[in-house]
Amino acid sequence: MTLSTNSPAGVVLPENPAALLPSEARELFRAGVVSPTSGWSGGYAQANLIIVPKAQAFDVLLFAQRNPKPCPILGVLDAGETSGPLLFGGDVRTDVARYVVYEDGVKVDEPTDILAHWRDDLVTFIVGCSFTFEAALQENGIRVAHIDQGVNVPMYRTSVRCEPAGAMAGPLVVSMRPVPASQVSDAVRITSRYPAVHGAPVHVGNPAELGIADLARPDFGDAVEIPANHVPVFWACGVTPQAAVMESRPALAIGHAPGHMLITDARDSSYLVP
Amino acid sequence: MTLSTNSPAGVVLPENPAALLPSEARELFRAGVVSPTSGWSGGYAQANLIIVPKAQAFDVLLFAQRNPKPCPILGVLDAGETSGPLLFGGDVRTDVARYVVYEDGVKVDEPTDILAHWRDDLVTFIVGCSFTFEAALQENGIRVAHIDQGVNVPMYRTSVRCEPAGAMAGPLVVSMRPVPASQVSDAVRITSRYPAVHGAPVHVGNPAELGIADLARPDFGDAVEIPANHVPVFWACGVTPQAAVMESRPALAIGHAPGHMLITDARDSSYLVP
Repeated sequence: MTLSTNSPAGVVLPENPAALLPSEARELFRAGVVSPTSGWSGGYAQANLIIVPKAQAFDVLLFAQRNPKPCPILGVLDAGETSGPLLFGGDVRTDVARYVVYEDGVKVDEPTDILAHWRDDLVTFIVGCSFTFEAALQENGIRVAHIDQGVNVPMYRTSVRCEPAGAMAGPLVVSMRPVPASQVSDAVRITSRYPAVHGAPVHVGNPAELGIADLARPDFGDAVEIPANHVPVFWACGVTPQAAVMESRPALAIGHAPGHMLITDARDSSYLVP
Repeated sequence: MTLSTNSPAGVVLPENPAALLPSEARELFRAGVVSPTSGWSGGYAQANLIIVPKAQAFDVLLFAQRNPKPCPILGVLDAGETSGPLLFGGDVRTDVARYVVYEDGVKVDEPTDILAHWRDDLVTFIVGCSFTFEAALQENGIRVAHIDQGVNVPMYRTSVRCEPAGAMAGPLVVSMRPVPASQVSDAVRITSRYPAVHGAPVHVGNPAELGIADLARPDFGDAVEIPANHVPVFWACGVTPQAAVMESRPALAIGHAPGHMLITDARDSSYLVP
């Protein structure tokens, strides 16, 4: 396993992160392990975070309601709450490998916990993540390039605008997975059954039309090699609220570092529709 | 057509309300027609309203997010907005047949417009309604009792508690349609394909378990006769936020009169999932 990482010296990555229970994975992150989480805790849903003061919470929730593909809400922790049923016994301030802190829309810190930034008026939104359906893709014979290549998923800001809500406005962010042309239809069909974790792709095959100039230069995460006969397939991404935060410049906002997700206690299968 | 009504003298009910365009139906309500809307404007989605001051809007939106079966949000009008894409050219203050105004959780008015109550800080939530899937039931050979009997749909407060959100807390409200035992499975299957308008039933067959003592005495709407060999089937109902308002007692809240819906320009089919 060669996941890109920058854990502090002395912190050892688990040999088989797929086998960890969510509570075990969260405990490792709490202890200082830093790693993208694709492939971790097989069978359990992963999630994006966006944390804002109560005064901005309505705009964020409305933004999510109006943009359900990139922002499917799995849960909301009330102002000041640091745990909940999606992370039983956990703490949202410490249990993610790395966070991003924004002040006035500018990244000011990328800490491994947010204890120093915490305030009792902070509301935490837990947003679905496409890592959740990757096991289903693999089980159906569709390889996931960034897992095979041991890197973070590539993510791109697009030229597609989200529906604004109050002060929140910004571009759609997408994740990209190259899929063999013969399996694109299967990838659409399989992921459409997971609407709460971004569902079906928003775009298949033409990055230029999304305003993506160069797939080799993602805005977040790592580039992946695109094998021959593979088509780039784009899914809406839960980093979208962070792009809106950068553009809308609230005094304070906190997200996860892209690709470094909250691993929840919810089963992947609980987000599968018939 | 013998829909129960209490339109002012001189206002004439349309002969064939199913054939009206949504804009025509809204114009009639604006002119003073009062009628439950089940069966009106065939093919177009109907919606519940809950309107609250901006200060309460986060709690209402979070309540909806946590209780998606009774409160599927179709759209939100920003503070002070009176129209939007779901009611093109319309006015949410006048285009519903009858409204209910609550002060401190107590019904204080049931006007046919809310111009006198309007404030620029009011946020309007447009919530899916099960009337939207009734045409699909009928097309599949399942009769809808309250349409056949020319009355409003029966609705009941249940003993099931919603997930609270901030100040908003209250019981699940359900609508009931009697379905022949042999067609219950079809009714579940068909309505499950409309998750944005309450989706599959929440309960089939045992009103006592929902805390409903007497089906002949609904809390909202009219009782229907239950034909022999029919099973009462219960769907989550968009009156639920009004029940929470009655219990949570915000200073001001406005809803539609139960069964007297906003008729939107959205097609029923736009809420059908594959």
